[in-house]
Amino acid sequence: MGYKVEVLDGDWVRKTINPEAGYTKEERARHLRRVAWIARLLARNGVITLCSFVSPYRDVREEVRKIISEEVPFYEIYVKASLEEVIKRDPKGLYKKALKGEIKNFTGISDPYEEPERPDLVINTEEESVEESTKRLLDFILEKVGGEGYGQDNA
Amino acid sequence: MGYKVEVLDGDWVRKTINPEAGYTKEERARHLRRVAWIARLLARNGVITLCSFVSPYRDVREEVRKIISEEVPFYEIYVKASLEEVIKRDPKGLYKKALKGEIKNFTGISDPYEEPERPDLVINTEEESVEESTKRLLDFILEKVGGEGYGQDNA
Repeated sequence: MGYKVEVLDGDWVRKTINPEAGYTKEERARHLRRVAWIARLLARNGVITLCSFVSPYRDVREEVRKIISEEVPFYEIYVKASLEEVIKRDPKGLYKKALKGEIKNFTGISDPYEEPERPDLVINTEEESVEESTKRLLDFILEKVGGEGYGQDNA
Repeated sequence: MGYKVEVLDGDWVRKTINPEAGYTKEERARHLRRVAWIARLLARNGVITLCSFVSPYRDVREEVRKIISEEVPFYEIYVKASLEEVIKRDPKGLYKKALKGEIKNFTGISDPYEEPERPDLVINTEEESVEESTKRLLDFILEKVGGEGYGQDNA
């Protein structure tokens, strides 16, 4: 569609920008504040920036919202799945290890997950197919960028 | 001129993206590797990104060059001034403190400064006026971006 888009994903950011990030509440908060500033830099240059992070703490998400929305629009999207379901999926085998006590500070097992109270969009991955979720997310993004000056570059 | 431009400056990055950065060689290296990734993200989205950092170590500058030039053009610009001159200027009073031993790991005083060997541009601030330096830097940037797809946004 000609939009500039970046995906800042947790695994990628931990490999590149933030290789020393840990998993305690304070380390996660530092990590996400940093990502918030980077997303703000990208978005103010017209780049639609999707940030996919675990971000389990309500107060840290509020900090992130504050940093970003000082300058550009911020939307919280809750990609929802129950603990039972994510334990079943477990693509990296991490829940299995966490349940055995082999990983500390693991969200949902040995650390809390504070559900968003008023997310801008909920993607309920247990009730929708991947295709349906993708379409809803894309429709949401297109509706939002329409009015907010993200130029389509047709050069 | 319609170009998208960001300046990533040391003081600003230490206030926002990297508030916990220190000044030892290892901490500076981590700081600059992080900035390199952020500059790469911006530049690959067509943002001309000027990075102004002390960056005193040759091997760290090489690492930065490697990270960035994997994907986008990187140019090393040496903003040159002698130690005598920067001690005289000292706008923040930091050299005065460092000379008294009140600041550790201070480049040029208690830590090395490894001069660039083959910078892409040298701005000799003791021989040129600010206006001359600015013009030379701008001419250099315009020459480089001309052929490299940094779109001018006239929207």
